[in-house]
Amino acid sequence: MTVEDIRSAAQRIRPYVVRTPLVPALWAEPSRPLWIKPETLQPIGAFKVRGAFHAVGNLDESVRRRGVVAYSSGNHAQAVAYAARIHGIPAHIVMPEQTAPNKVEATRRHGARVVLCAAGQREQVAAELLARTGGALVPPFDHPDVIAGHGTIGLEIAEDLPTVDNVLVPVSGGGLAAGVGTAIKALCPTARVFGVEPELAADTAESLAAGHLVDWPVDRRDRTVADGLRAQPSALTFAHLQQVLDGVITVSEDEILSAVRELALHAHIVSEPSGAVGLAAYRRGALPPGRTVVVVSGGNIEPRLLAEVLAG
Amino acid sequence: MTVEDIRSAAQRIRPYVVRTPLVPALWAEPSRPLWIKPETLQPIGAFKVRGAFHAVGNLDESVRRRGVVAYSSGNHAQAVAYAARIHGIPAHIVMPEQTAPNKVEATRRHGARVVLCAAGQREQVAAELLARTGGALVPPFDHPDVIAGHGTIGLEIAEDLPTVDNVLVPVSGGGLAAGVGTAIKALCPTARVFGVEPELAADTAESLAAGHLVDWPVDRRDRTVADGLRAQPSALTFAHLQQVLDGVITVSEDEILSAVRELALHAHIVSEPSGAVGLAAYRRGALPPGRTVVVVSGGNIEPRLLAEVLAG
Repeated sequence: MTVEDIRSAAQRIRPYVVRTPLVPALWAEPSRPLWIKPETLQPIGAFKVRGAFHAVGNLDESVRRRGVVAYSSGNHAQAVAYAARIHGIPAHIVMPEQTAPNKVEATRRHGARVVLCAAGQREQVAAELLARTGGALVPPFDHPDVIAGHGTIGLEIAEDLPTVDNVLVPVSGGGLAAGVGTAIKALCPTARVFGVEPELAADTAESLAAGHLVDWPVDRRDRTVADGLRAQPSALTFAHLQQVLDGVITVSEDEILSAVRELALHAHIVSEPSGAVGLAAYRRGALPPGRTVVVVSGGNIEPRLLAEVLAG
Repeated sequence: MTVEDIRSAAQRIRPYVVRTPLVPALWAEPSRPLWIKPETLQPIGAFKVRGAFHAVGNLDESVRRRGVVAYSSGNHAQAVAYAARIHGIPAHIVMPEQTAPNKVEATRRHGARVVLCAAGQREQVAAELLARTGGALVPPFDHPDVIAGHGTIGLEIAEDLPTVDNVLVPVSGGGLAAGVGTAIKALCPTARVFGVEPELAADTAESLAAGHLVDWPVDRRDRTVADGLRAQPSALTFAHLQQVLDGVITVSEDEILSAVRELALHAHIVSEPSGAVGLAAYRRGALPPGRTVVVVSGGNIEPRLLAEVLAG
């Protein structure tokens, strides 16, 4: 993956995604001027559209016409459904039976056919759909086109703030951090890129320290409120993370919810817990000084949780 | 006021304000595709920085060095305080004694000297400060530089969506609607521009129908929850509104709070009640069909009110 791949992704997805600005955070610490990159403003409310539009757009026309398949219960489901609708092609989204009805409904609203399946069956169900339709799988992170699409966030940061010193990015499957890190390291070689994880799903921090992927069982990762950060890197994304990350910062559940509150009240941005971990890491004060950008990756929070966090 | 004045304002304020994107609202009615212009992302959380930076930047250097004076208990206070700090000049902000302590504190945090005064005394106190300092008054709307600064929002809408059909803008003192309307009518001559007011502060709707300014007593306007929309147009802004508005839509208090909720949950944008009136008007469904842009003017809502609105 090179910055040229990411530039090419930027060209392809330009008509479909929001060119998000850097929002200056006036309440920052003086030694670390802070900007927020609000990916909450994307269609479907999360950065996932960047990878989805790039992956769908890069398919051979003959394959694309037959449609796409994805498995996800989160923002990737909606992103692929939306990209498919805009391209005028069918989408099948495989979701676990226990997925919250509002997420199933949101995905259907974008015109996708949702296929519910038993826990642990999703890959098999997706394979059957692919065999039947002849379409293509759009994975949530384990694909170079998805990583390059997400990396366009890094290009935009480098364009808007070429003197950036620190970039903070949530890490889950690692596609976002791999893409953003690749762009930043190429364009702002002195900048540091930090991944951020919940303490309760800190598999990447442990894996990077060990020098190889360490598996955390899913029931351990599922403890965090940051439901978008419960995945683990693949071999592909992990290899990128080893190259581009200067470290991983882990944050507590309380710090995550505090950051959700701060984003709403000071930056006027609604963030889901997964989106707020970068700000939580910033607030820890353990960063080197310098101009800091926090990527706020998505805003799909349960209304009740947001109300609770605001009521404090 | 011409679009050239607004272009010149855009040049001047570019280093200081956020170039806000148009955020597509996927949940819109099919006959009226909808985009949100999130001025909530500006420094201090509201569009007011546009007018403030233009007015302060346009002062003669000799006057500017002596500082600026403003009277406001709202977003304009913080905008002028912030613009003065960035320009390295003193600011005196005159506020009524009953201003909420958090607003006084927010203004002081930007380095301004806050001068509290009795109700009805603010103009006299400001005049004394001007006489003593030799500085300049930055009015909240009744000034061509302020109107032109706010009009840069219209320039950006025309750049990003030249085929826009409807633009919805909150109306209070009328500076925002006058500026945005002037830019849109010049650049997108077939587009319609609608002002939006709370029913409880519908003085502009009544004035436009009467063909002259109709005064609503302040205690009547103060009933609305939209505390940024309690001012009335001046002769200058009213003359512009008569030229550029295709109508004024009024909305109820319930509709305003519903729109605050919808912006948070669907657009992931925290809006104050005043900022949400445009979306409330859109939801009424009384607009002509076509591509619609709603300007969401600010996000400084009381945390408790936002929590209540979200809890539903």
